[in-house]
Amino acid sequence: MGSKYPRSVRGCLPPWALMLQGALVLIFFFFTSYDTSSKDQKKLLGTYQVVQDLSVMAALGLGFLTSSLRRHGWSSVAFNLFLLAVGVQWAVLLDGFLNQPFHGKVSIKLSSLPPAAMSATSVLISAGAVLGKASLVQLLVMALVEVTAFSTLRMLDRRVLNMDNHVSMMHIHVFAAYFGLTVAWFLSKPLPEGVEEKEKMATSPSLFAMLGTLFLWIFWPSFNSALLDIPNERKLAVLNTYYALAVSTVIATSASAWTHPQGKINLTHIHNAVLAGGVAVGASCHLIPYPPLAMGLGLVAGLISVSGAVCLPVCLHRVLRIHDTSGVHYTFGLPGLLGGITYIVLMVLQASWASSPWFGPKSQNMESTSCGK
Amino acid sequence: MGSKYPRSVRGCLPPWALMLQGALVLIFFFFTSYDTSSKDQKKLLGTYQVVQDLSVMAALGLGFLTSSLRRHGWSSVAFNLFLLAVGVQWAVLLDGFLNQPFHGKVSIKLSSLPPAAMSATSVLISAGAVLGKASLVQLLVMALVEVTAFSTLRMLDRRVLNMDNHVSMMHIHVFAAYFGLTVAWFLSKPLPEGVEEKEKMATSPSLFAMLGTLFLWIFWPSFNSALLDIPNERKLAVLNTYYALAVSTVIATSASAWTHPQGKINLTHIHNAVLAGGVAVGASCHLIPYPPLAMGLGLVAGLISVSGAVCLPVCLHRVLRIHDTSGVHYTFGLPGLLGGITYIVLMVLQASWASSPWFGPKSQNMESTSCGK
Amino acid sequence: MGSKYPRSVRGCLPPWALMLQGALVLIFFFFTSYDTSSKDQKKLLGTYQVVQDLSVMAALGLGFLTSSLRRHGWSSVAFNLFLLAVGVQWAVLLDGFLNQPFHGKVSIKLSSLPPAAMSATSVLISAGAVLGKASLVQLLVMALVEVTAFSTLRMLDRRVLNMDNHVSMMHIHVFAAYFGLTVAWFLSKPLPEGVEEKEKMATSPSLFAMLGTLFLWIFWPSFNSALLDIPNERKLAVLNTYYALAVSTVIATSASAWTHPQGKINLTHIHNAVLAGGVAVGASCHLIPYPPLAMGLGLVAGLISVSGAVCLPVCLHRVLRIHDTSGVHYTFGLPGLLGGITYIVLMVLQASWASSPWFGPKSQNMESTSCGK
Repeated sequence: MGSKYPRSVRGCLPPWALMLQGALVLIFFFFTSYDTSSKDQKKLLGTYQVVQDLSVMAALGLGFLTSSLRRHGWSSVAFNLFLLAVGVQWAVLLDGFLNQPFHGKVSIKLSSLPPAAMSATSVLISAGAVLGKASLVQLLVMALVEVTAFSTLRMLDRRVLNMDNHVSMMHIHVFAAYFGLTVAWFLSKPLPEGVEEKEKMATSPSLFAMLGTLFLWIFWPSFNSALLDIPNERKLAVLNTYYALAVSTVIATSASAWTHPQGKINLTHIHNAVLAGGVAVGASCHLIPYPPLAMGLGLVAGLISVSGAVCLPVCLHRVLRIHDTSGVHYTFGLPGLLGGITYIVLMVLQASWASSPWFGPKSQNMESTSCGK
Repeated sequence: MGSKYPRSVRGCLPPWALMLQGALVLIFFFFTSYDTSSKDQKKLLGTYQVVQDLSVMAALGLGFLTSSLRRHGWSSVAFNLFLLAVGVQWAVLLDGFLNQPFHGKVSIKLSSLPPAAMSATSVLISAGAVLGKASLVQLLVMALVEVTAFSTLRMLDRRVLNMDNHVSMMHIHVFAAYFGLTVAWFLSKPLPEGVEEKEKMATSPSLFAMLGTLFLWIFWPSFNSALLDIPNERKLAVLNTYYALAVSTVIATSASAWTHPQGKINLTHIHNAVLAGGVAVGASCHLIPYPPLAMGLGLVAGLISVSGAVCLPVCLHRVLRIHDTSGVHYTFGLPGLLGGITYIVLMVLQASWASSPWFGPKSQNMESTSCGK
Repeated sequence: MGSKYPRSVRGCLPPWALMLQGALVLIFFFFTSYDTSSKDQKKLLGTYQVVQDLSVMAALGLGFLTSSLRRHGWSSVAFNLFLLAVGVQWAVLLDGFLNQPFHGKVSIKLSSLPPAAMSATSVLISAGAVLGKASLVQLLVMALVEVTAFSTLRMLDRRVLNMDNHVSMMHIHVFAAYFGLTVAWFLSKPLPEGVEEKEKMATSPSLFAMLGTLFLWIFWPSFNSALLDIPNERKLAVLNTYYALAVSTVIATSASAWTHPQGKINLTHIHNAVLAGGVAVGASCHLIPYPPLAMGLGLVAGLISVSGAVCLPVCLHRVLRIHDTSGVHYTFGLPGLLGGITYIVLMVLQASWASSPWFGPKSQNMESTSCGK
């Protein structure tokens, strides 16, 4: 639990965290109220289901994904829960202030929780890059700054670029990965000694990391469809994510065996690269009209992720002096970039081939369905 | 697996358990039938979801929560499942006999399972206090007695005090904690030797305990809203529980670091105290109309739970000679008492300030919503 | 990770797996399209829930169930995920080709995923019997052959025997167990040395096996009701499975203690036998009209499973030279046979006693309900 940090840094946590939590309670007291209208009652079950799935991904999935370091198993899970608890509260407030028309009170609905939980998830992704290099106080500051930055970015996306809720949220992977790498770069200079020893992987916890991976793998379709309202788009999002994940699993396993001289499968590749398909398909999962497109994305994402894991750490570490503890760069960063490029290409194609047999009638179909629902 | 117990006690289990199970099958044969009316078909998906969430909490959550003792990891999970399987069958029968108008047959519906699973959960909570001190036969007897006592108590609550289903169920935490402590007090005298050694915490299983904690943390909103029928109350219950849990997580982590001279975080505090918010908010979660009230409850519950964990074991152990193996007193007992007091205060306030701007219009709103649904 | 296999076998995996995946993407490209009609939108939430539950069972449950071998913990989970990812893609294609009227394109719906995931599950069950004896290339071939065989069998069941979707799927346990044993028998001759040493159970991973068991236990009602459409049948399936599992848990624990001279409970029995009730009740869970019938099935299944685990491995291993690594024969094979016999008996009774007070009016009731829904 980071016993190498100076006493002074550690001693800060209790007073600061208690004061912060007190301040949050006060802000909630003066500026929020529950929305007691009965509008969203029909979707109560579905919304609660989404909240639950996102909690499983954030608390269990991302918590255990980074638990494979020898001396960080337990504390990475506990820190993860702490950051999630702080991040969700702050994100609910910010989302309310930045997005709702402000009448003195932020109205809190059950449907405020999914975007807040997703914003808080960006912190958990970034934390993977600085694990073992930052104390809990530093992580707490990072959480507040990152949630603020990400919420502001999403507001700009929506107001300036007219993006919808889902697409602006899917920036999360790229944003969180490079935010985490930047923090890791700042923290890399005064690295306390003994960190290298800590990074060694423990054998038994690696089953826990596999557990985290599987939770993320299973619930990823929920993540990609959480902010979609039109049933047909939700269905497409679930199916495309499912196929992309399946393909990237096969590719990650095979490619990992290929990179090893004796054909062994590397634990770290599997923990990270099987998720690449879900990340890559995120931004465009509600638009892709044919399964092989999603599968192809999963295929490329799996290849990129494994080759990134093989080649990049050396470059990053030696040249840029960035040390990415649990590989968020090739788990979330590179596949996220691939997903962003795919989304832009799809948009351009859809605009230029508006009357082509590939995208034209299909998208018209979808629009008419969504209008007639 | 308790190899210190005399042969005679252990040998009892198979014949008694098989006879008990045979008797249960016979009672089900003569006194129960499935309800084949198609009334609750619309809510089939929702009810099944609740059953599943409660099973996850009982079998995975409470099973792994107590798995951090050095020599009890596996058997605590297996005993937990055994007690759950017996307890659910017995609770379904008792609920039917005590609550339904009896026409010769108890009618079993899907909606009979959630209250039965919750009654059985009380046994699993109590078992945490006597773990390592009781054989499986003793735990089996405890299960039957406790489910009977708890079901009778709930029937009296409803008939004499006119409580509704949800509130009478939320006695579970206080009831189970003190029932467990009483049993621990009875069992504390002829303590077999070597138990202290067993209580030492193993390092690797503590990640399993964290896993159990996280399952409970994630699915606690389901527990607190399981017996509520009105959509608006369900929504409030989910939101209040979510916020209370988030706050008690932050508080538990900070307070735990405060109590350690070098600012380290104590594993046991996190395993237990992050849940205090969910326990404290249980009884009144469907009534609290403002988020900061739930958050304040979570804050106080987290503080009480950590300070209880720091101060009480010494008093209890030395003065009263009660040995509470996995800390059910400060996980469930004290926050449960806080929740009960809060509920009574809220009721009194609601009655006296019936026309005040705080509770009056809000509760009228809720009534009109629930009537008009 | 099987370092005893010759280099040549291992080296095969990457090219073959990549080629296979490329071929699958091409087949999807030419022969499939998404079904964009809005027919199944109402059941979107329910169908997605079923997909998720089946994924949890396949990836987490069956993955960790077999993770208790000393040197196979991690790789059994990773191989399991790989086989699931390949199997699901192949099963979706086969189900489309064999069952839908073929108009040049297989139409892929969200409701195509549950049967495909279940077909792929058969591979994961069989893999339990050959774990540690087969390389990943051999497992990959096994996956393709087994999914093809099982899909063909189901098509014949439906076309020739007029079975419905649910009943034909419930052959899965018997089919997968004996398919796995057959493969184990073929592979048993050139057994690489050192396999016995690998089979020893590790102590810490056994908690992971318990985790897998619990996931299967909790989500089994979803498995047994996944392909049922009529609400009343779903409800009966959930209730019957729940009771059968509860009873087989009690029986497995007691019987396991009975077989040990000092009354200790055997880890392996619990990991496997608590699931026997769910397997046995599978084929007839939507028909059983009284709870004690399901409970009796669970009781017999638990006894069969534990006594199979005690007696059979010696016979099988010595006489037939079949080595069943993780006991699929007595977890899935024998209880599945019991379930099949029960189904046939129920059918015969229902046909002969069509006017008797036991089955006659009940089944008429159910029919009228299902028609009137």
